[in-house]
Amino acid sequence: MSSHISPESATQTPESVAEQLHQQVLASPSRRAFLRQASIATVAAGAVGALAACGDTAAQKAAPATAKAAPDSDHSGGSTAAHPSTAGAAPSPTAVAPYGGLTLAQARARADAMDAMHEKGIKAFPAATKGKGNQLLKPRIENGVKVFELTARPMKWETEPGKLVDAWAYNEQVPGPQIRVTEGDRVRVVIKNELPESTAVHFHGVVLPVAQDGVPFITQPPVKPGESFTYEFTAKNAGSHMYHSHMNAAKQVGTGLLGAFIIEPKRPRRIEKVDVDYVMVLNDGMHGYTLNGKGFPATEPIKAKLGQKVRIRFMNEGMMIHPMHLHGMPMTVIDKDGWAQPAPWKCDTLNIAPGERWDVIVDCDNPGVWAFHCHILPHAEMEHGMFGMVTALIVEK
Amino acid sequence: MSSHISPESATQTPESVAEQLHQQVLASPSRRAFLRQASIATVAAGAVGALAACGDTAAQKAAPATAKAAPDSDHSGGSTAAHPSTAGAAPSPTAVAPYGGLTLAQARARADAMDAMHEKGIKAFPAATKGKGNQLLKPRIENGVKVFELTARPMKWETEPGKLVDAWAYNEQVPGPQIRVTEGDRVRVVIKNELPESTAVHFHGVVLPVAQDGVPFITQPPVKPGESFTYEFTAKNAGSHMYHSHMNAAKQVGTGLLGAFIIEPKRPRRIEKVDVDYVMVLNDGMHGYTLNGKGFPATEPIKAKLGQKVRIRFMNEGMMIHPMHLHGMPMTVIDKDGWAQPAPWKCDTLNIAPGERWDVIVDCDNPGVWAFHCHILPHAEMEHGMFGMVTALIVEK
Amino acid sequence: MSSHISPESATQTPESVAEQLHQQVLASPSRRAFLRQASIATVAAGAVGALAACGDTAAQKAAPATAKAAPDSDHSGGSTAAHPSTAGAAPSPTAVAPYGGLTLAQARARADAMDAMHEKGIKAFPAATKGKGNQLLKPRIENGVKVFELTARPMKWETEPGKLVDAWAYNEQVPGPQIRVTEGDRVRVVIKNELPESTAVHFHGVVLPVAQDGVPFITQPPVKPGESFTYEFTAKNAGSHMYHSHMNAAKQVGTGLLGAFIIEPKRPRRIEKVDVDYVMVLNDGMHGYTLNGKGFPATEPIKAKLGQKVRIRFMNEGMMIHPMHLHGMPMTVIDKDGWAQPAPWKCDTLNIAPGERWDVIVDCDNPGVWAFHCHILPHAEMEHGMFGMVTALIVEK
Repeated sequence: MSSHISPESATQTPESVAEQLHQQVLASPSRRAFLRQASIATVAAGAVGALAACGDTAAQKAAPATAKAAPDSDHSGGSTAAHPSTAGAAPSPTAVAPYGGLTLAQARARADAMDAMHEKGIKAFPAATKGKGNQLLKPRIENGVKVFELTARPMKWETEPGKLVDAWAYNEQVPGPQIRVTEGDRVRVVIKNELPESTAVHFHGVVLPVAQDGVPFITQPPVKPGESFTYEFTAKNAGSHMYHSHMNAAKQVGTGLLGAFIIEPKRPRRIEKVDVDYVMVLNDGMHGYTLNGKGFPATEPIKAKLGQKVRIRFMNEGMMIHPMHLHGMPMTVIDKDGWAQPAPWKCDTLNIAPGERWDVIVDCDNPGVWAFHCHILPHAEMEHGMFGMVTALIVEK
Repeated sequence: MSSHISPESATQTPESVAEQLHQQVLASPSRRAFLRQASIATVAAGAVGALAACGDTAAQKAAPATAKAAPDSDHSGGSTAAHPSTAGAAPSPTAVAPYGGLTLAQARARADAMDAMHEKGIKAFPAATKGKGNQLLKPRIENGVKVFELTARPMKWETEPGKLVDAWAYNEQVPGPQIRVTEGDRVRVVIKNELPESTAVHFHGVVLPVAQDGVPFITQPPVKPGESFTYEFTAKNAGSHMYHSHMNAAKQVGTGLLGAFIIEPKRPRRIEKVDVDYVMVLNDGMHGYTLNGKGFPATEPIKAKLGQKVRIRFMNEGMMIHPMHLHGMPMTVIDKDGWAQPAPWKCDTLNIAPGERWDVIVDCDNPGVWAFHCHILPHAEMEHGMFGMVTALIVEK
Repeated sequence: MSSHISPESATQTPESVAEQLHQQVLASPSRRAFLRQASIATVAAGAVGALAACGDTAAQKAAPATAKAAPDSDHSGGSTAAHPSTAGAAPSPTAVAPYGGLTLAQARARADAMDAMHEKGIKAFPAATKGKGNQLLKPRIENGVKVFELTARPMKWETEPGKLVDAWAYNEQVPGPQIRVTEGDRVRVVIKNELPESTAVHFHGVVLPVAQDGVPFITQPPVKPGESFTYEFTAKNAGSHMYHSHMNAAKQVGTGLLGAFIIEPKRPRRIEKVDVDYVMVLNDGMHGYTLNGKGFPATEPIKAKLGQKVRIRFMNEGMMIHPMHLHGMPMTVIDKDGWAQPAPWKCDTLNIAPGERWDVIVDCDNPGVWAFHCHILPHAEMEHGMFGMVTALIVEK
């Protein structure tokens, strides 16, 4: 076990996730019913145009006969079955006809079209895009000082396949490169400004002398285009922190000038000895709803083996709350803004406000591909399928 | 005392609440002053049209003489009195005339018109509407398995008197029927889809095998129109959970496909032995701001006797936070998402984010009809009076 | 040490803050580089119009030579330096030219213009405005009862220099005057209504008899224009509470009818013995984003000496969450809605929802002028500089 695992350890190739999802759905007891329905639905979909014109008798005949599938194991009860028509039931005064007035065949055709879009998104996950943010930045060591160099400049950033947005980025990454140091380290951060306006770097949550605090005209002059500025301080307070612009910040942070700044403790607590240490930066600005700079299906799944422990460091760099919901297993909250909570506590939906960091531990005791998303549903799903702040925690047997 | 009381135990007829409010306002020491003012105001209101044309001398004469009411008991100091004109006071440079430039009589007439609308809303509470959500669903027992059947279909739902909205509902209820089981129970839920699109049921917060998790194309095929799907699992983690659609969820949940899923513990903690166990589902989607599917004055008051304990299970199925504020008594927070907090803590305003569940205990030691509402004021009150996320906790002597 | 310090103790004159900021920026190791750049930038700014027409050769020549500044003390590493052109580096496919396609001189001129606006705002802090809210209201004592008199009437309120908004205010203050009593006190509050509509006062968070709860038609008749109403109760539950209108509240509270109601404990806990006791009322309604009724730069800095303890009582009277972020030192959360948390816990960003109160302690062990603001960045900064929910905690050596 190790308390310092780079985000890469949680990555897997697109192929392996697709395969895993395929196996998971195949393993469902309803597989055969599903396949049978699919073929029927395809027929119905093809017929829908004609049906709209000529009535629904044929479509009704296409409706599958009732089938009752039994759970095939002690653990899983999933089964698909067609059910008999409810045409004979007495409707209540406020009831509307089944299928909202469509014939069953029309409803099926409509469903099939929508399902295909949903399936396409999920099959594409994790979709390849150019650029990966939040990559660990190796420092240069100068006389015992860990030196990190950041260049801020405009670029195009691909948030999901084919969607290029205007970004201002540190070292061509959104989020900027992940900075990790250890409690007590002497740290130097050099920012080079290649933006068309001034900037400054604030180390959000890091306790340091005021001259290093990065607020133009309050603690320093702004760093003008073409200039560099050097910050230097000793990392005192362990925890999950951030760095970001503090100049014209609603725009500069909103467009990408942000990153994780993690100070690891000299003596980790027992609870923070984990197998996977994952940073998840939430954002909702000009780039849409993103996790680590990408929207679903281009988000990165988190991967662990059964029995492992995953630490997730949530960081909100956006303008809205994001209550992150993990399926399948609770999250144990240990830290707020890098400070230990008086006692760990459990939840499955954790509300993260702008500027907050929350650290949680997940005991991966439930195998499968688990949805993991913001529970403000319009941040996660639309008519055409899941998007934005959606990823998965994959627990492999 | 019992840890399992159905929501019905908290219901009372419209008549009894109106009577209680009537007594409560009558008991106010300012009753006589109120009645006197009311008659004056009525006169003034009638006169306002004329006044607007001919000046305010007559109206000023109608202003009541100063009266100083003394508190009539050790406990209550409420008293209404007219007060002398402040015309003689030197106004500050930024001050505006009293009554915003209206004459007193004009202000009174304006107030009377607004007050009448406010009073009408409150007098109507709890207003009768067709349909009641969140009703306890009795399972069928099959070989020791508790079987719950849900049918999803479109309907019209009445959120407040005369306001019919389009809903997609489970068993013609919004929220869907309340499912309650006990820790260790084997549970089967059969969903029958009569919607014009595919669906699936996610058991939000419930720890179960991934095949039962209800996420189309990740854990199962979508349940197409005309099909059924059977979920089965053992209820492991006690607490306040939810079930809702996880397909096109921003729409399907937003329009009503949601409900409470409660797992009662085998051995309840001492703190959860209560007299009233109330589920409050918050929503803010296409149906407006609602508590258990209804907007004020059609919301349901919670009723308890002095000295009783009420447990409230807040569940947010909406897209916004709702900081719920209870008047008169603090709430003791015991659980988050069904997991015990390390120690109970008190508040009077509890911020509940989408997807979160919070359980609180109220010790009903303060008799009266207590307002209970979301403290985002535009979710609770408009110029014409209270609406939306407003109800009352009634503590009867 | 004292547990009751009026807000005034935290005030300082505009001149002293400007001087302090001046010294703080001068003390920055980058001072000389800053001055040098500034003169270059001024030249470039003057030339930008011409450059836009004739190309950028001259501007490129104006670019400063590389300079590497060394940190000048163990504590501070701040240094500004120009850096060499990156023209020779191979750009990635998604990279955009440095400075977003502007020449360096153009970028500098753009930056200088923006910087001047940012600097102007900060230099103006704390800007003088007419009117100060949240002033301690001295009660009149009548037979041992503390009597507070409030008059509600319309006025103009200056939220920042030259910005006058329509307000409905108690005693011509936004927030209304601060009411402070001690646990066990008998309290009387007389509200005189000079508004053009009815009103009522709710004591938010205060445990009292229902007749004193201030909800029209539920606990009392509305207080009509020209009338007074008297509330009387014994202050039972110590803590940070509020008073505000509960009639047409989205409008009446939104436009200023709100204030702090603090009940000091008879026997303060050790942790609440502080040097500065500061109330910070957050708002976001018709008056814009404000702290104690003012927007930056007219907000009030909080001032303490090195080694002192500051208690901040956050109160949200708005319609949105505000995650307040303090730079430089953590905040220790002790109370929620006036009730002690089971154990204190630390953070640097505290999410405060409408209706909530949170009490925190800051150990002022880090000298300097520390930014203190809502971390929803559009509530705190725009292209032209900081505004709205921004202030500073000044820790003086």
